[in-house]
Amino acid sequence: MEASEIRALFAVASRPEVVSLAGGMPNLAALPLGALSEQVARLVAQDGLTALQYASAHGLPPLRERICDVMALEGIAARPEDVVVTVGSQMGIDLLTRLLCDPGDVVLAEGPSYVGALGSFAAYQAQVVHVPMDAHGLVPDELRVALVRARTAGQRVKLLYTIPNFHNPAGVTLAAGRRAEILEICRAHDVLVVEDNPYGLLGFDGAAPAALRSTDPDNVVYLGSFSKTFASGLRVGWVLAPDEVRDRLVLAMESATLCPPTLNQMIVERYLAGHDWQGQIAVFRDLYRERRDVMLDALERFLPPGCTWTVPDGGFYVWVTVPEGVDTRAMLPRAVAARVAYASGSGFYADKSGGRQMRLSYCYPTPERIHEGVRRLAGVLEAELEPGFSTGS
Amino acid sequence: MEASEIRALFAVASRPEVVSLAGGMPNLAALPLGALSEQVARLVAQDGLTALQYASAHGLPPLRERICDVMALEGIAARPEDVVVTVGSQMGIDLLTRLLCDPGDVVLAEGPSYVGALGSFAAYQAQVVHVPMDAHGLVPDELRVALVRARTAGQRVKLLYTIPNFHNPAGVTLAAGRRAEILEICRAHDVLVVEDNPYGLLGFDGAAPAALRSTDPDNVVYLGSFSKTFASGLRVGWVLAPDEVRDRLVLAMESATLCPPTLNQMIVERYLAGHDWQGQIAVFRDLYRERRDVMLDALERFLPPGCTWTVPDGGFYVWVTVPEGVDTRAMLPRAVAARVAYASGSGFYADKSGGRQMRLSYCYPTPERIHEGVRRLAGVLEAELEPGFSTGS
Repeated sequence: MEASEIRALFAVASRPEVVSLAGGMPNLAALPLGALSEQVARLVAQDGLTALQYASAHGLPPLRERICDVMALEGIAARPEDVVVTVGSQMGIDLLTRLLCDPGDVVLAEGPSYVGALGSFAAYQAQVVHVPMDAHGLVPDELRVALVRARTAGQRVKLLYTIPNFHNPAGVTLAAGRRAEILEICRAHDVLVVEDNPYGLLGFDGAAPAALRSTDPDNVVYLGSFSKTFASGLRVGWVLAPDEVRDRLVLAMESATLCPPTLNQMIVERYLAGHDWQGQIAVFRDLYRERRDVMLDALERFLPPGCTWTVPDGGFYVWVTVPEGVDTRAMLPRAVAARVAYASGSGFYADKSGGRQMRLSYCYPTPERIHEGVRRLAGVLEAELEPGFSTGS
Repeated sequence: MEASEIRALFAVASRPEVVSLAGGMPNLAALPLGALSEQVARLVAQDGLTALQYASAHGLPPLRERICDVMALEGIAARPEDVVVTVGSQMGIDLLTRLLCDPGDVVLAEGPSYVGALGSFAAYQAQVVHVPMDAHGLVPDELRVALVRARTAGQRVKLLYTIPNFHNPAGVTLAAGRRAEILEICRAHDVLVVEDNPYGLLGFDGAAPAALRSTDPDNVVYLGSFSKTFASGLRVGWVLAPDEVRDRLVLAMESATLCPPTLNQMIVERYLAGHDWQGQIAVFRDLYRERRDVMLDALERFLPPGCTWTVPDGGFYVWVTVPEGVDTRAMLPRAVAARVAYASGSGFYADKSGGRQMRLSYCYPTPERIHEGVRRLAGVLEAELEPGFSTGS
């Protein structure tokens, strides 16, 4: 297990004069804190004896019902008993890896992939094989190649970990036309699909892509989260899993933490019951779309020739590729000195490749800061590209 | 991994007419819910953008400082940077096992021991060797015997997991005179001590026993919890660990859940800062002492000859041994039919022995219900002991 580069970066880049395009913190300023405060006060005063007490490892039944309503927006027909509430969907990833992978087993994941998932795969000594994406997400033919190569090498491929919508960090979305094909390939090779979908409701056109789980309930484990659509600090996520995985997951939850925090589950349940949560998600969507637009404009305007980037239709991230000769990891201290931070691409690959990439987040800073941050970043890149500039750090 | 018998029991015994002496739920009725409600409302209204946001995997610094104040009551001098906040101390047990134990490693634990710890040890395929207790807790000579036996068998003993104070489920406390000896034995054998202390401040004479950690900071990992002294449903616990274990634990926390819930940490921190939390613990102590007295009186009055039990000086539990020929596991359905539930002793041993024992909890029911529950239990036991009664179930 090793420290994630991204979080180490948070500390360096946390000074107020630095524009951080590095983190993945949701922009909570749009939340109705006054109404939430009243709701939580009522909850503690009237139902505190339940909210402050132990509960089941499976999660509170009323919350699991509401979670099914949320997933229905993505075409998923689920039973509340198949939902397991977790302490953030990171816990779902971690416990699923523990349950499903033995040391040496292969996990297929997009290249690049979510750093927190890579951390859990490494912790359980699973071996990550990255599968390339293009602008339409995971490439089915590349998935076939990776599977054949692994089988030929005598490796056991346990699962495909995928973020089909508004990918972290790549910013791309798996094309509708590829979804059935990917599912079919995985079924044919007896590989379980783990669909991680924290951003699915944050598509800028307002329509949620149909989840992989919606058409293949038996071979897809679905991970959901309220961290990006409500409040990350509550740490409430969930797993929707086929029976056998679900039963083992409940036991793993019990071993991991006895039960997810009862108070937090009730806060989310009452929020979903009593607020216009879909309206709130629309507010978030507008806020992130505006920031995405500002970032894309600034990239177009300021970045030196030879840089390319993805164009996200939702979520938090743009994935930038810089010209040959630039090492984004080596460049980072110089960027921070120029008062801008980003996440170097190398943190998003199990083998630490990705030195010509970086993830830029537009979720948290103001539009003005995003504009200024990209301007500063462009200056750093230009200096880096000057003839004779040493990239040693 | 297998389902814990105890929690399965909760479901059966949850009908209101059944007196449950089975669970370990704290009695929250004594909490000042009105004041807490106001405090939480202020927190969300004024600091919601922090409380609802991600934070560090290590835990919030102001909470870690307050936790050091709590541990000072047990003679521990700790630095906030050595405290890692966990999602309940169950998570501390689980992650420590993951970090410290390889499959087949031996964990020494009191016999009986906490069911949640046994679950984590089993999940990571550590092998539990139980060490006998007497009325004064873990027996040092038995610890020596277990260590020699394990070494002779070529087994690697990784740690001693111990609950020195008001033991769950045994109800006994490690005598002050044995503490240095136990620590010395473990140091001599290079065995790390994991001190699990959720009940340490709930001693009925009001004085907290000095923690093992207070005299041996380098070889003791200390686990603390707010579940029994404040509110279990918040799931806030902590680990105080030597540097090297601490650093790995923070990384494991990140992999397990990114960060403990921020809101819950801030609720506990402000509760400790703004309430007379020591006075509140005194209220809990009085409440549990009264219930302990009622249970001991009822046991004395009703239980048939041949039954023996421990006399707890704090905490939640009495450990009862029944006459030969009675199997507490087989008897349980008959007890529930007679409207009383308990936890059979077999759940508290890795090898499922303990069939002549049961754990009775006095923490949650009213004194009247405790009295009535023990009366019913005595009736069941008497029927069980009648000549010719079949114990098959």
